[in-house]
Amino acid sequence: GRKVLIVYAHQEPRSLNGSLKSIAVEELSKQGCSVTVSDLYAMQFEPRATRSDIVGCLHNPEEFNYGVEMWEAYKRGDLSSDLIEEQKKVQEADLLIFQFPLYWFSMPAIMKGWMDRVLVQGFAHEFPNCYDSGLLKDKLALFSFTTGGSEEMYAKGGINGDIRYLLWPMQHGIMHFCGIKLLAPHICFAPEYVSEEKRKEMLIAWAQRLKTLWKEEPINCSPEWYFK
Amino acid sequence: GRKVLIVYAHQEPRSLNGSLKSIAVEELSKQGCSVTVSDLYAMQFEPRATRSDIVGCLHNPEEFNYGVEMWEAYKRGDLSSDLIEEQKKVQEADLLIFQFPLYWFSMPAIMKGWMDRVLVQGFAHEFPNCYDSGLLKDKLALFSFTTGGSEEMYAKGGINGDIRYLLWPMQHGIMHFCGIKLLAPHICFAPEYVSEEKRKEMLIAWAQRLKTLWKEEPINCSPEWYFK
Repeated sequence: GRKVLIVYAHQEPRSLNGSLKSIAVEELSKQGCSVTVSDLYAMQFEPRATRSDIVGCLHNPEEFNYGVEMWEAYKRGDLSSDLIEEQKKVQEADLLIFQFPLYWFSMPAIMKGWMDRVLVQGFAHEFPNCYDSGLLKDKLALFSFTTGGSEEMYAKGGINGDIRYLLWPMQHGIMHFCGIKLLAPHICFAPEYVSEEKRKEMLIAWAQRLKTLWKEEPINCSPEWYFK
Repeated sequence: GRKVLIVYAHQEPRSLNGSLKSIAVEELSKQGCSVTVSDLYAMQFEPRATRSDIVGCLHNPEEFNYGVEMWEAYKRGDLSSDLIEEQKKVQEADLLIFQFPLYWFSMPAIMKGWMDRVLVQGFAHEFPNCYDSGLLKDKLALFSFTTGGSEEMYAKGGINGDIRYLLWPMQHGIMHFCGIKLLAPHICFAPEYVSEEKRKEMLIAWAQRLKTLWKEEPINCSPEWYFK
């Protein structure tokens, strides 16, 4: 059975994001996958990158360099226990699903903190092992999110610009950098401004997609896909 | 005298980011500007968007919707005191400078949390008052940051893609959305991999730029600038 990690960032279980997360757990479990959820708000996940992420002494206490210290701490096995937990979940997963409401053309800070703190050099990448040879290659990721703006606002000529523009830092800059291949994003546009019926259709569409998810080919994560 | 707010996100005062921040305080003060710094790590600024950001009762306690609750709380004057503080600083500022190390093609989570929690609907935007008619129009913003990757890696054909691609969500998606005009970003590429002399040159170049900053014209914040 395949292993899936859902990293989920919504405060309210009754939200559409909450329902999308539950549907993924249900549908993927039904398929025989083993599903783990990191419910970031429920965990009160720490988003700040600080000295507390390193157990014991610093490599260079004179001038704190977060990247260097995390790399060294990873090699010594001295990362804080919450990060070791998350890294274990990532290591075991075949697929990472990120479920969140779009905040300011990006993920909520609590999820950005997960990226900043968990995907440490040595664990997720280690130059020159980045992009296609990143340390997490052979894994898949899928960004599933809701927006405030409508699909028209996120069209190529729309005021928000093509939705793909804002996927570049998240998909290429983070996931691809670590060697992870991207499945097409799953986007629910403006659920707050549509009918209850439309919202139900959104949930059904997600359940449907999940049924054949493992047959999907990853996108070609190059500038053409984003900016063609 | 003009007012400047520097939102600063680095853990180490002795870092290049720390020096860039200090230089801005010094140079702008010398010009007669009044300069305020929000030193996010020193403040232990909270990045998570939670129920605690609203004082008193919720508008809809049945289903917590962060955006709606924050909008309502703003109108009632019921935002948590740390947010009221930050909004006051923004309101008074003519120019916002964001000083940070690039983390994963974006700002560190602690700064993303500042955006998520401070730039509330009603305060920074209120449909249809967004983009050129955003509620913070007549203000300027400048993103000043350091990178891990070199300038060549962030060139148009480089493995990281054009650095401007990753500026889209931050400059257009956040600042422009609130009506704020953008001065050209100030980027120090890969300071960790250059000589001490080169780093000194970076500091001098920033001080030099600040001397004539108020004569600069904002960029044309449209897709052409980013993806031309």
